[in-house]
Amino acid sequence: MRLEIAAFVSVVSIFSVAHAETGVLMPKELSFKSKECIKCHKEKSLVITQQWGASHHYRANVGCYECHQANKNDSDAILHYDEYISIIVSPKDCGRCHEKEADEFDASRHSKGGRILGSLDNRLAEVVEGDHMMKTPGFPEGVPAAAVSGCLQCHGSEVKVINEGKLDPATWPNTGIGRINPDGSEGSCSACHSRHKFSVKQARNPENCGKCHMGPDHPQIEIYEESKHGIAFHANKEKMNLENAKWILGEDYNAAPTCATCHMSATPDQDVTHDTGMRISWNNRPIMSIRPEVSDARLGLPGKEFSWEKRRARMKNVCLNCHNEGYVENFYAQYDAFIELYNTKFAQPGKKLMALAKPLLKPVVFGNKIDFTWFELWHHEGRRGRHGASMMGPDYTQWHGIYEVAKNFYTEFIPELEKIAKDNLHSDDSARVKQAKRLQKWIDKVLSSKNHRWFINKMDPEEAARRKAAQKAFQERYRE
Amino acid sequence: MRLEIAAFVSVVSIFSVAHAETGVLMPKELSFKSKECIKCHKEKSLVITQQWGASHHYRANVGCYECHQANKNDSDAILHYDEYISIIVSPKDCGRCHEKEADEFDASRHSKGGRILGSLDNRLAEVVEGDHMMKTPGFPEGVPAAAVSGCLQCHGSEVKVINEGKLDPATWPNTGIGRINPDGSEGSCSACHSRHKFSVKQARNPENCGKCHMGPDHPQIEIYEESKHGIAFHANKEKMNLENAKWILGEDYNAAPTCATCHMSATPDQDVTHDTGMRISWNNRPIMSIRPEVSDARLGLPGKEFSWEKRRARMKNVCLNCHNEGYVENFYAQYDAFIELYNTKFAQPGKKLMALAKPLLKPVVFGNKIDFTWFELWHHEGRRGRHGASMMGPDYTQWHGIYEVAKNFYTEFIPELEKIAKDNLHSDDSARVKQAKRLQKWIDKVLSSKNHRWFINKMDPEEAARRKAAQKAFQERYRE
Amino acid sequence: MRLEIAAFVSVVSIFSVAHAETGVLMPKELSFKSKECIKCHKEKSLVITQQWGASHHYRANVGCYECHQANKNDSDAILHYDEYISIIVSPKDCGRCHEKEADEFDASRHSKGGRILGSLDNRLAEVVEGDHMMKTPGFPEGVPAAAVSGCLQCHGSEVKVINEGKLDPATWPNTGIGRINPDGSEGSCSACHSRHKFSVKQARNPENCGKCHMGPDHPQIEIYEESKHGIAFHANKEKMNLENAKWILGEDYNAAPTCATCHMSATPDQDVTHDTGMRISWNNRPIMSIRPEVSDARLGLPGKEFSWEKRRARMKNVCLNCHNEGYVENFYAQYDAFIELYNTKFAQPGKKLMALAKPLLKPVVFGNKIDFTWFELWHHEGRRGRHGASMMGPDYTQWHGIYEVAKNFYTEFIPELEKIAKDNLHSDDSARVKQAKRLQKWIDKVLSSKNHRWFINKMDPEEAARRKAAQKAFQERYRE
Repeated sequence: MRLEIAAFVSVVSIFSVAHAETGVLMPKELSFKSKECIKCHKEKSLVITQQWGASHHYRANVGCYECHQANKNDSDAILHYDEYISIIVSPKDCGRCHEKEADEFDASRHSKGGRILGSLDNRLAEVVEGDHMMKTPGFPEGVPAAAVSGCLQCHGSEVKVINEGKLDPATWPNTGIGRINPDGSEGSCSACHSRHKFSVKQARNPENCGKCHMGPDHPQIEIYEESKHGIAFHANKEKMNLENAKWILGEDYNAAPTCATCHMSATPDQDVTHDTGMRISWNNRPIMSIRPEVSDARLGLPGKEFSWEKRRARMKNVCLNCHNEGYVENFYAQYDAFIELYNTKFAQPGKKLMALAKPLLKPVVFGNKIDFTWFELWHHEGRRGRHGASMMGPDYTQWHGIYEVAKNFYTEFIPELEKIAKDNLHSDDSARVKQAKRLQKWIDKVLSSKNHRWFINKMDPEEAARRKAAQKAFQERYRE
Repeated sequence: MRLEIAAFVSVVSIFSVAHAETGVLMPKELSFKSKECIKCHKEKSLVITQQWGASHHYRANVGCYECHQANKNDSDAILHYDEYISIIVSPKDCGRCHEKEADEFDASRHSKGGRILGSLDNRLAEVVEGDHMMKTPGFPEGVPAAAVSGCLQCHGSEVKVINEGKLDPATWPNTGIGRINPDGSEGSCSACHSRHKFSVKQARNPENCGKCHMGPDHPQIEIYEESKHGIAFHANKEKMNLENAKWILGEDYNAAPTCATCHMSATPDQDVTHDTGMRISWNNRPIMSIRPEVSDARLGLPGKEFSWEKRRARMKNVCLNCHNEGYVENFYAQYDAFIELYNTKFAQPGKKLMALAKPLLKPVVFGNKIDFTWFELWHHEGRRGRHGASMMGPDYTQWHGIYEVAKNFYTEFIPELEKIAKDNLHSDDSARVKQAKRLQKWIDKVLSSKNHRWFINKMDPEEAARRKAAQKAFQERYRE
Repeated sequence: MRLEIAAFVSVVSIFSVAHAETGVLMPKELSFKSKECIKCHKEKSLVITQQWGASHHYRANVGCYECHQANKNDSDAILHYDEYISIIVSPKDCGRCHEKEADEFDASRHSKGGRILGSLDNRLAEVVEGDHMMKTPGFPEGVPAAAVSGCLQCHGSEVKVINEGKLDPATWPNTGIGRINPDGSEGSCSACHSRHKFSVKQARNPENCGKCHMGPDHPQIEIYEESKHGIAFHANKEKMNLENAKWILGEDYNAAPTCATCHMSATPDQDVTHDTGMRISWNNRPIMSIRPEVSDARLGLPGKEFSWEKRRARMKNVCLNCHNEGYVENFYAQYDAFIELYNTKFAQPGKKLMALAKPLLKPVVFGNKIDFTWFELWHHEGRRGRHGASMMGPDYTQWHGIYEVAKNFYTEFIPELEKIAKDNLHSDDSARVKQAKRLQKWIDKVLSSKNHRWFINKMDPEEAARRKAAQKAFQERYRE
């Protein structure tokens, strides 16, 4: 049974056959209305009709009208040659045929990416980087172009209809995965299934995920490319059978995994899922890594009932197709230890120290240099290391990741905190003096703790001796 | 008619057929002289003859001698087994057959890249990074190796002939696109059409442009790879028909655009052009983005007569093959708003403040820390954001781009300026004191302006209230 | 003769044919023991058996048992259904058939990567970034997770067996190229020849090398991708004949070189080698570039007897397949001049100044900001420039490389040194005062030297005049 070949009841104006399992009906031929669309668009938008012509939709007799139809009362309905249509095809529209996929996607964090509006990152784009100079019909008070061309292109805009179905340029074009659509639905299927070919092959390509999962703060694609998984993929791309409708690891391909393989696709024991969080056991987004059911609970998602242990069991089920149990268990021991290291040594004390420093700072978020220092420590560098460890990309784990965390912790973050404390020790405001003392006390406490005392030249003597011996041994065998 | 298959009059020593449209004659068979070359080079340079054997030149009976021939009086002529030849095949040589392409290229900024010698960037390579330790026959006073292996490999060297056609190692090997050749011509066709296969397929590959359009200061290839365009290309490379002589979007391929598609190649309405600036409507190279006809005028190029509106119309004509008008109009609204944001909020005030600081700085370009801070703000980070917005690469627009601009503007640039002002306020030199006061006044003016006053905790109360409400709403839906 | 098709004497339980040249015997059919393995693993590890089924090993009747067999007394022997096997297949195991390859690899620096334990980089992972929180059976005192998931994944771990052949999670999974194996051998063949397909095609792909040769401190893959070599590879990948057993440049392919082509693979005059240092003429790893025979001597490798001139002659032999002699000679003039520039202008004075500063620093390695400044100058930025020049990647040479070196030398390193000197000039400790004076004297000496005096506004007047003239000429032709 191919999920892609399906159709929906509402527009069937010709004889159709009932599809037993999905309950949707497939048109026996392309609808009259779609044929009318194509007559003209073959002239005006040749490439779009060609791309559609190469799609499974074409073969299933799903045409322009089947997806773009609208009700007269839809806020984004356009009267177009006697028919109501809309530009945006939302997950609600796709879900008329692809119900399972739409439901899974709706339950995922992916579809909620647009809710970032108002968050800390958003303050960056709206206030720090941005302005209110982009004035559009939908935003007469102005909107920050930095958010429009930046954040929202991955997270998704809240699409505004300005007149007769026309979409506001501050909110469209936009294929952000958490787009808030005029019909109230959340998400954008075309974030991954690019129109108008909607190619599964493309969706299974790692580059597809890389549109958003890249760069200084979430370099998953770079890490994948570095890893053995990415190397095997690029060497064997033509053997990946990426265009096959059914794509079960070990049945339909075996040369390499892509992002989809591990996070979404079918194994002999698991169905494909469009809720991409169901196999991950850490959420490495926040300052400190947390369990995915905890973060799902914050968004009120059904995933709150699905523990990290169950998710990890699913991922292990994927791993075990190519690796043995000892390997997989040991990998998770390495990954967990890395998260623990980052959380305990840097994130936790950093968070505490920032909280203590806050009353001494200019009360403007990102108005102090240390706001950026701390932000990049966890949001950029800390994530890079954690993501690197999660996918076995050693360079991202080390040089792009935890090395940068440590360097900036000791040479930027701590000195900036010490300066803040010092600058306030002789303030006229006794509350500030008190807070400065507390801050300095905690800085000292952190630096005197087991993992940091090397920095103040107080390494545990036993450890120092052990290290000295190791270094001597090294110098003997590797004199350079 | 295939432009690639052509030949030139001067060397035809055998029967040839007149080519009606181009006016050049095609040899009926490979010339005697080229056959002689190959007899020996098959032994000495097997791979080169193999690559040539795979080229269109081979099929058009264009051999070694046809391209490498020289006149006795050419400065780089070498007497080689009784024939005068030259190592470099310049655009003038290629233009004997490929006249239209050579003319277009000669009118482009691409072919003028070598004129950078003496510019600000060049000071970097020659003085700041470099030295005069590389002494060659052509440069007995020494030349900076940093320029030779760095800048000039993209921009092009001014090739020096040292003796009997031998080329100076400070200037050759070099395939910089704006190379200044011994025959006085500007440019290098092999910058893109790598010898000795001269493959259109390779030239149409995005990686080909990436040799120069990459890295911290002009990451076009990285942005393309991130964009939907690059994703579609990599997923559908084998369907791109890249080896086809005729390569018209919508006729010969429809799966994805490459760099060439949008900036050079044919559409149903437009011919291919080798002047790559003819479809761009912003020049994002300078401190502030300007219109391309303005920058073309500065170089005395014919493009000075060709307005950005006309160029944008050409680009839209490309876009409309795959996108509808509303989409394209809205995209340009987003792009223009981003440029406006960057120009107005950061570039303009930054430029003004640097001019005011200059009399207070050590009078050595790049002799002050702030010279680098400002340089990277516009030359690296500012460009990254602008290029990102121009090609819909959200991560480059945001994290690699405008985020870095804003961060460094507030946490590096402004504090450095304030320190300069402060350090000079009590100078013995009254002119310095006066200038320091002016500088501080302008810093205050910038920070009190609409787009910056948030930083000094003076956000417009109405906006602050609006933001607070938005943040509260956010916290309700996304509690993490 | 195909090296891949070989077998070893010890396990042959069926009729076999003697292989005349290698002296090893090839099984006529798959061994009974391997057949037994597969019966069960087809169920438990389907993909592994599929990958093996696509390998040359399958066609040579080399199965699971032939590689994984162990002796009862091996420290990592596991009793598995009545047979002793081990998880790790070490170079010693591979060498039973692939003797020449194993010997060459054993002589290479690659196989010695694990000896880094105890080095400077290692201090970073163990102390600065790390902790001792990862407690495993093999490391009851704790081991730093930063090293486990970072450094050791490229350099190689020292594998610890914890019980009955089970491997300690702090040391396994690990495919670092210099892994120290339970049998005492050094290296990991699967670092490049990923199990269980062991594909030569994959090993010849540049991405394969990129698992380790990437990132801020050794971006060889990024440089290759930027270079003409990488561009030609990606445009012509399908013509590279990468799966061919014999892979001689000019006989079996001619479209582009990969990493393997230049550093390892066969040319008409050279055999393939698994000692990848045998064609390089500079070791760009240390602070100052040195000759490879010098660094090989420090490790006691046989390469100490093989001069850089001989190695360069081998590389030139590769180059000359596609380039002429003048080109190759000139390239090396450019490369050498760049190394000389970096060594003389930045590395040598930097090293001297750091040595002078050391007595004035907190006596904790990486306990001072300048430790990181200096480390990144040579270890990150300096290498990037040098590697860029070595492989003709202009952007890495310039913007990622020597530009960063120069910027940080003048705006970070020198000012930090000056502050250290100043802070100690009025110390109570006369030895510190004396050292501070020495340091300041040397800073002045460096800044007054030929290559640096521009920075203190004392450029040689003649040079200044020459530069002014050049700049004027530039401004006339390129007014922007």
